[in-house]
Amino acid sequence: MFPKNAWYVACTPDEIASKPLGRQICGEKIVFYRGAEGKVAAVEDFCPHRGAPLSLGFVRDGQLVCGYHGLEMGCDGKPVSMPGQRVRGFPCIRSFAVVERYGFIWIWPGEKELADPALIHHLEWADNPEWAYGGGLYHINCDYRLMIDNLMDLTHETYVHASSIGQKEIDEAPVNTRVEGEQVITSRYMENIMAPPFWRMALRGNGLADDVPVDRWQVCRFTPPSHVMIEVGVAHAGHGGYEAPAQHKASSIVVDFITPETETSHWYFWGMARHFRPDDQELTATIRDGQGKIFGEDREMLELQQANLLKYPERRLLALNIDAGGVQSRKILDKWLARDVGAGKAAAA
Amino acid sequence: MFPKNAWYVACTPDEIASKPLGRQICGEKIVFYRGAEGKVAAVEDFCPHRGAPLSLGFVRDGQLVCGYHGLEMGCDGKPVSMPGQRVRGFPCIRSFAVVERYGFIWIWPGEKELADPALIHHLEWADNPEWAYGGGLYHINCDYRLMIDNLMDLTHETYVHASSIGQKEIDEAPVNTRVEGEQVITSRYMENIMAPPFWRMALRGNGLADDVPVDRWQVCRFTPPSHVMIEVGVAHAGHGGYEAPAQHKASSIVVDFITPETETSHWYFWGMARHFRPDDQELTATIRDGQGKIFGEDREMLELQQANLLKYPERRLLALNIDAGGVQSRKILDKWLARDVGAGKAAAA
Amino acid sequence: MFPKNAWYVACTPDEIASKPLGRQICGEKIVFYRGAEGKVAAVEDFCPHRGAPLSLGFVRDGQLVCGYHGLEMGCDGKPVSMPGQRVRGFPCIRSFAVVERYGFIWIWPGEKELADPALIHHLEWADNPEWAYGGGLYHINCDYRLMIDNLMDLTHETYVHASSIGQKEIDEAPVNTRVEGEQVITSRYMENIMAPPFWRMALRGNGLADDVPVDRWQVCRFTPPSHVMIEVGVAHAGHGGYEAPAQHKASSIVVDFITPETETSHWYFWGMARHFRPDDQELTATIRDGQGKIFGEDREMLELQQANLLKYPERRLLALNIDAGGVQSRKILDKWLARDVGAGKAAAA
Repeated sequence: MFPKNAWYVACTPDEIASKPLGRQICGEKIVFYRGAEGKVAAVEDFCPHRGAPLSLGFVRDGQLVCGYHGLEMGCDGKPVSMPGQRVRGFPCIRSFAVVERYGFIWIWPGEKELADPALIHHLEWADNPEWAYGGGLYHINCDYRLMIDNLMDLTHETYVHASSIGQKEIDEAPVNTRVEGEQVITSRYMENIMAPPFWRMALRGNGLADDVPVDRWQVCRFTPPSHVMIEVGVAHAGHGGYEAPAQHKASSIVVDFITPETETSHWYFWGMARHFRPDDQELTATIRDGQGKIFGEDREMLELQQANLLKYPERRLLALNIDAGGVQSRKILDKWLARDVGAGKAAAA
Repeated sequence: MFPKNAWYVACTPDEIASKPLGRQICGEKIVFYRGAEGKVAAVEDFCPHRGAPLSLGFVRDGQLVCGYHGLEMGCDGKPVSMPGQRVRGFPCIRSFAVVERYGFIWIWPGEKELADPALIHHLEWADNPEWAYGGGLYHINCDYRLMIDNLMDLTHETYVHASSIGQKEIDEAPVNTRVEGEQVITSRYMENIMAPPFWRMALRGNGLADDVPVDRWQVCRFTPPSHVMIEVGVAHAGHGGYEAPAQHKASSIVVDFITPETETSHWYFWGMARHFRPDDQELTATIRDGQGKIFGEDREMLELQQANLLKYPERRLLALNIDAGGVQSRKILDKWLARDVGAGKAAAA
Repeated sequence: MFPKNAWYVACTPDEIASKPLGRQICGEKIVFYRGAEGKVAAVEDFCPHRGAPLSLGFVRDGQLVCGYHGLEMGCDGKPVSMPGQRVRGFPCIRSFAVVERYGFIWIWPGEKELADPALIHHLEWADNPEWAYGGGLYHINCDYRLMIDNLMDLTHETYVHASSIGQKEIDEAPVNTRVEGEQVITSRYMENIMAPPFWRMALRGNGLADDVPVDRWQVCRFTPPSHVMIEVGVAHAGHGGYEAPAQHKASSIVVDFITPETETSHWYFWGMARHFRPDDQELTATIRDGQGKIFGEDREMLELQQANLLKYPERRLLALNIDAGGVQSRKILDKWLARDVGAGKAAAA
């Protein structure tokens, strides 16, 4: 249950730097590679000759070459040539709209003619020298929507991430949920508390004292199909919190791109964009390590939650106030799913 | 095909000493933990909030706390509290009758109101300072009844355990099978033979010569649902065998608790209770090591036997005289299974 | 979709040298062992007593003994004896026609009475002191027919084996396919080219210069059910190529026995029979190592091709001129499959 007419993050440039990458996205087996002039391309990972995965092949003069018998595949899914063969009558494979932007490769797994690059989620911090970004990729065996739920309700930090970003005060602070168009926002503000270990590290990283009370905030923004950007940070208490001037705070955006692989697995691109000391690469590495450990803690929980849901498919779960972010996000997803059905009918007609 | 209205061994106290334990028993996912005043409790391993496994949580002030969002679950399956929530209307989960006795945690996976602790299998050697016990746990991928068959026909020792407890004379000795109420007993007596390596070790462990002829016995007792206690031992020949005074023999009880996980897998709690040198912990360790190796030999055989039976489900197996122990045990199990059906009807009415 | 009334290679003698071997072939679980007088025997890997795999047993005085409870099984599938039992009335299991020849054990998984050893594929080089043979065995997760396709179209060498036996000239040389009775032959001849690394090694191994132009040939011969023998070699250019006298060439036969395990997996016995320096065991080892690496390259391609075909079962593949060898081979296989159906009907009548 994932919308296909939508932009998802497919991979990062380093994954296609030396050879094609085969990856299943929204149920489609796709090969990603750099074609002519280094432009990213994506076609089905299925050679029409014998069904070999094209991702085992290589790129020659900007053309993807099948590694089994040498069929050259165009980035439009039309075979270009094959040694000793006329390829005119060969069947084509699907090609996908794909765009490189903001340091990611974006894919539109649905109908190509509907793919408008202007619809790609805007990342205001990307390509901005005042910001730094570091992140990673996890493969997680659960429905991508469980990850959305997870990120739209940070109450879990108190429990799942008790030793890093969790603290009792999260639990105790009221959560506010609102919907703005197709954006869902959950937010929490905590005042005059002590920062947990991860944020003490970030304060020190920004040259700030880590042993004084802080104001802390978490503002989670879901946008369809499955992006969750979370403004997080701490400011020395009494300087305005979220609104405090830069010299009093350490603030970042937790970046989550959640790309379905199958109905019960997804690719989780996680990272952090920070608005302080952008040139400090050591700090970037330290934050990435810390974040990698934290997001590894979610994995066990989510995969076992998925196993439980598969074992007891008839059980209804609760939708509490803390779950409102996930609930509202799914309502928007349902609209997008319905729109997919409409697009399918239009295409068929 | 396992009776659910029955007491099974679920785990040992060390398995729940530091944190909750999630374990599937008779098809039910269950979390075991120590609740108020250290009393053992067991509820479904499924948080009614979002389906997370409660076994990933922790115990705080005697209450099980979900490790995802902090729901406190009562040992009766009723949610007790949750930060920022009123839990009155929350759905409950199943709780299970569970008893700690004889150094094991016992579970009744069926209807709780039928669970009478007086029905727990009595272990006369437990909590008795004249006896020592050591054992372990294996997860085995086969129907628990194949393990019962295995233990009620020790002919297999000659073949599966040729280098430790097996010897040709087992094969050659007649086996006697009888049913006493709901107990099935198979027995074998061998006179004036040389002891195999495991028993020579045990003789030495008891300060007895290991190079003289012995009388050897094996008395297997099945009681439902799946306990097999085996009196085993050797005595220097001519002193009365099974009835010989303590100073002439090394005797023990092989303890087997066989707890179904699914239709084709089970938890195998194996061990040995011995009636000599109970304070010799080194001897306990030596015996446990020896037994662990021996029972590891059964595993490959039983798992591949199960694979064969799944591949050829239509084939009827033989029921020879040596198989009478298993056959009679299954007859009693069939009665218990029928009783389960009756209990289900009564509960429904 | 594999013919069962056919001779397949089951294993090599070293695999049954010290104990019985359990192996699934054409969907049948079979145990192979040396019975009376060292004669190879094959029966179902299923003890009629309790369904244990007989391959966990041992051979005693030429009889296969079940390793669970000691049933002695005859090589005709009739139980011979069992300690303390009369086995007359025991059910029998299937026995299979099996022949040791040419350094391989051959199995006829179909109806035993149709198994004529004269039908075993003749290997003219086996048991011939002028030839040497070295080979190995891979388990491959794909339909055995994908491996036949692979070997009947060596175009793939250019791509899959680019660093060893592949070269651009293969791709460019026309391929010829012909059918002679039930044999399919594809051939390619390349003149006045430089030898690729594997063949330069072979030239040196035969005491020939490796830096001069050569003529190269590849003649693939499929015979049902799934044998592919490939005459391969290089001769110093201008000496007659395939017909060149022995002192000018290095030539071999690539030996491929492809034995179905299930519909989507097979046992791949690969090797090389060479007609030069037969006594040079170091050369045999060098060639085997090289070949082992090369055939390992096919595995990833074939297994991922199989995964693609399972995911898109409705897609039709292309049958180009280079695929004619595989296409014709499948036509002959279809005849054999139809013959199997006929044999089944005759047996039923």
